[in-house]
Amino acid sequence: MVLTLSCRNGRGIVHAVSGALLSVQGDITESKQFDSPDTGTFFMRVEFTTPEPLTAVEAALAPVKEEFAMDMGLWEASRKTRTLVMCSKDGRTLNDLLFQQRAGTLAVEIPVIVSNHLELQPMAFFYGIPFVHIPVGKDAQGASTKAEAEAKLLDLVREYDIELVVLARYMQILSDDLCRRLEGRAINIHHSFLPSFKGAKPYHQAHERGVKLIGATAHYVTGDLDEGPIIEQTVQRVTHAQSAREFVIRGREVEGSTLSRAVKWHAEHRVLLDGKRTVVFD
Amino acid sequence: MVLTLSCRNGRGIVHAVSGALLSVQGDITESKQFDSPDTGTFFMRVEFTTPEPLTAVEAALAPVKEEFAMDMGLWEASRKTRTLVMCSKDGRTLNDLLFQQRAGTLAVEIPVIVSNHLELQPMAFFYGIPFVHIPVGKDAQGASTKAEAEAKLLDLVREYDIELVVLARYMQILSDDLCRRLEGRAINIHHSFLPSFKGAKPYHQAHERGVKLIGATAHYVTGDLDEGPIIEQTVQRVTHAQSAREFVIRGREVEGSTLSRAVKWHAEHRVLLDGKRTVVFD
Amino acid sequence: MVLTLSCRNGRGIVHAVSGALLSVQGDITESKQFDSPDTGTFFMRVEFTTPEPLTAVEAALAPVKEEFAMDMGLWEASRKTRTLVMCSKDGRTLNDLLFQQRAGTLAVEIPVIVSNHLELQPMAFFYGIPFVHIPVGKDAQGASTKAEAEAKLLDLVREYDIELVVLARYMQILSDDLCRRLEGRAINIHHSFLPSFKGAKPYHQAHERGVKLIGATAHYVTGDLDEGPIIEQTVQRVTHAQSAREFVIRGREVEGSTLSRAVKWHAEHRVLLDGKRTVVFD
Amino acid sequence: MVLTLSCRNGRGIVHAVSGALLSVQGDITESKQFDSPDTGTFFMRVEFTTPEPLTAVEAALAPVKEEFAMDMGLWEASRKTRTLVMCSKDGRTLNDLLFQQRAGTLAVEIPVIVSNHLELQPMAFFYGIPFVHIPVGKDAQGASTKAEAEAKLLDLVREYDIELVVLARYMQILSDDLCRRLEGRAINIHHSFLPSFKGAKPYHQAHERGVKLIGATAHYVTGDLDEGPIIEQTVQRVTHAQSAREFVIRGREVEGSTLSRAVKWHAEHRVLLDGKRTVVFD
Repeated sequence: MVLTLSCRNGRGIVHAVSGALLSVQGDITESKQFDSPDTGTFFMRVEFTTPEPLTAVEAALAPVKEEFAMDMGLWEASRKTRTLVMCSKDGRTLNDLLFQQRAGTLAVEIPVIVSNHLELQPMAFFYGIPFVHIPVGKDAQGASTKAEAEAKLLDLVREYDIELVVLARYMQILSDDLCRRLEGRAINIHHSFLPSFKGAKPYHQAHERGVKLIGATAHYVTGDLDEGPIIEQTVQRVTHAQSAREFVIRGREVEGSTLSRAVKWHAEHRVLLDGKRTVVFD
Repeated sequence: MVLTLSCRNGRGIVHAVSGALLSVQGDITESKQFDSPDTGTFFMRVEFTTPEPLTAVEAALAPVKEEFAMDMGLWEASRKTRTLVMCSKDGRTLNDLLFQQRAGTLAVEIPVIVSNHLELQPMAFFYGIPFVHIPVGKDAQGASTKAEAEAKLLDLVREYDIELVVLARYMQILSDDLCRRLEGRAINIHHSFLPSFKGAKPYHQAHERGVKLIGATAHYVTGDLDEGPIIEQTVQRVTHAQSAREFVIRGREVEGSTLSRAVKWHAEHRVLLDGKRTVVFD
Repeated sequence: MVLTLSCRNGRGIVHAVSGALLSVQGDITESKQFDSPDTGTFFMRVEFTTPEPLTAVEAALAPVKEEFAMDMGLWEASRKTRTLVMCSKDGRTLNDLLFQQRAGTLAVEIPVIVSNHLELQPMAFFYGIPFVHIPVGKDAQGASTKAEAEAKLLDLVREYDIELVVLARYMQILSDDLCRRLEGRAINIHHSFLPSFKGAKPYHQAHERGVKLIGATAHYVTGDLDEGPIIEQTVQRVTHAQSAREFVIRGREVEGSTLSRAVKWHAEHRVLLDGKRTVVFD
Repeated sequence: MVLTLSCRNGRGIVHAVSGALLSVQGDITESKQFDSPDTGTFFMRVEFTTPEPLTAVEAALAPVKEEFAMDMGLWEASRKTRTLVMCSKDGRTLNDLLFQQRAGTLAVEIPVIVSNHLELQPMAFFYGIPFVHIPVGKDAQGASTKAEAEAKLLDLVREYDIELVVLARYMQILSDDLCRRLEGRAINIHHSFLPSFKGAKPYHQAHERGVKLIGATAHYVTGDLDEGPIIEQTVQRVTHAQSAREFVIRGREVEGSTLSRAVKWHAEHRVLLDGKRTVVFD
């Protein structure tokens, strides 16, 4: 099982938690903790085995949870996070996610893929995953169909009991309202080393500025575009001799692995929020 | 000898240059070139040996230079770039530069070090380099002494026949006027991965934003603060568990090597300007 | 067009080559060269445009080739290298190659995939590439079928006019004879940072030794197992907390991109052999 | 204070340790643990504050230590590790260590520097550290003075109450006997990515083999040359265009930082031994 918790820092927390786990014959296999000096918050993640069922463990932890006013999560470690992936036309990032999911190295199941285009339907088909096409554009009266598209998406989230939404190079900006509804359970990959080069065409901005390293950033989605808590970042070396188009190609190499790592950590309950920052117990 | 040149791109440039070098029995040991598709400019750097003196080589190249309207530079490869280093209180970056200069891996000579503080005088003394203290503050009337300080600096640049000014964590902002006078011959190290976190306290900004990589950027100084052409960048991994103070310590590790590489390349005439970008023939 | 050449170093080579290209109105778009001090060999790669056909360019270069006794190669830049990929059961590396080939970022065409197992046939099918199953094992008399399998492979190489064989985690050791026949046109990915951990189970060897970085090496195949000229290497950070199995998973992340880069460079004629080393004009 | 411990893995360890710390009003500020599946050993490192003196904490932990048959270490966090540095002629690595020690980012004090040459005496002088010259060579009868030199070194270790010996590019091979005596408290920097290129001239070996990355490895010294437990490794990109001499120069850039990190972690009691591997709680 995996236990995550956060609370105001204080004395005796580890002793209380380890005592509760001991009472259900818990055998700790991995434990990480962090005191945030900035927010005064204590974070902990424990992996353990126990012969007891989840409800018994919950009961054992309940008094500790109350005493320290903890935010607490408890999961069977083998349970997979139900994940909806959104994509557009470019499939490299999606391809990475689907391959790793099938290879068993990502603790997610993907019951449905959503795209505003049809290009990646064959890939979904190859991996045996339902593909829903939700175009975003103008209706007959010339009005945007975005609100309608987002409503459909939320229907799918409910219908498929989705716990995590992954934006795998989905090239549309989500509305503030949708961002708020998905807060803490939607991950985006931005193709720059944030906070550099927010917004559109970051590789072109990077080329224009003449940087010597380009990057990718996986972050939680918030209403503030490209400002959400960062989960993982990777960079890659470039030179003057590479064009903006080559930046795009080289960047792709790390976008997929950066996003996959972030999804893996989230699905294994390794990412906790500390204000606008993340605590990653990798 | 080292030859650098840039001109509008066109046919026959390489043939003309190699012909001129052949006429002085030049033996090319290293040659790099780059066509910038953005600016239509052709850049070239050639290292070669020749039994002829510099003036003879210049004469042989003169018609080529004129035909293609080239910007051209020609140097004895063994000649060292006369470099003035400016520093403040923190010596790590200075220490790296001085050690490498003495070890013979940086093609510079450093006839004078300038600082607005006295902390690093012993280090200059250890390396046998004159140290000039130019404080910046308020005079008796409460007016800033910055203009006066910059005038003294320019005097030193003239007096010591300085070709390159290196700002090794010199914590003062130079005036626009001084930046312009030193354009293309002053290199600064900024302790972030530009264009992220310009201005003051970049490590603290980076910590606040929760990034997973921190960096350092060596760039030419221009009037536009932290906007000059980038020569070299390096990053380093950080985690949630490191404080802003630890970011500072970890960052120091790469600031020195990043700045040293930029100085080395500049001193070996490996850096050419392509608009706001650099071409680095490393 | 792309021109590659190597010859004994001497004066006037660049001038002669650029003169020949000028005579066919060649416009050089990229040019790299290298003098190997160890072997006294000069290497050059030139990309250029010309209104003349390949035969005319060949004719123009013929006297230069003869004068300097050059090894020379000349190709249309748009021509794709005909590549046969061999794989076994694990598809991550194959998946990377096929995706990039289809995305147009690898200058290869892949007319046939060979495997000693059937697991990856669906992936070949998805990408529309013929899949040939050549099992390696024992025949009815208990004798190895390896020689027979290699004969079949060579038949396919001939039949499909193959220029490059890529071993994408093909887990069989090729015979010395086959290695010799494919010398310079077969690339393997070894899942360690060579020369560390040659042979079988390198991630387990790496874990046993307690290294802090693991890696992948793409190299040309030679009779000497894991001793061929190295084209590209990548490493990844690991810690004590990761098991050998996790090394395998993390390693996969870089195996595919390392092999793809090597294949890309080979297909673009950017890799030249300098004794047991490679010159990579990337 | 800092507590480190290791013992056979079992249930209740964390609870017992946290209970003992609670009894002395210990406030845990950092805690890391690791179960080694390979050796069945449990490792833990705790940083905590307490109003009690060290002896009281030791007394509180004594029953826990006995119950679980622990190897245990307990230190005042502010206490600096007494470190003897050995060097030869090249000062880059020494320079890094001394600078960081003085800047306060390495938790060591260095009461004495030992060298078999005199080149680095001025640097020791600059940092105000006694420098002892212990030459290694032949005596008047032509016999090696190595045994005598090592005896002198051990005298210094005793005299200065040395806890850690750092070999900062000390180019002599220590005798098996000395290695055994210093086991677990001597750190060496080897200038390759071990286990590649053991022994002499690793950069030249790396150049000969044509690798694309070079590295540095900080490890504990054991009788088995270059086979000791690895603490930290770093790599750096190289190309065909760099000579073995340039490998040496580029390598120096990372040797110092690699060794400094290893020394820092050791001095902060972050490195524990798990058989031939290290557990690094960084």
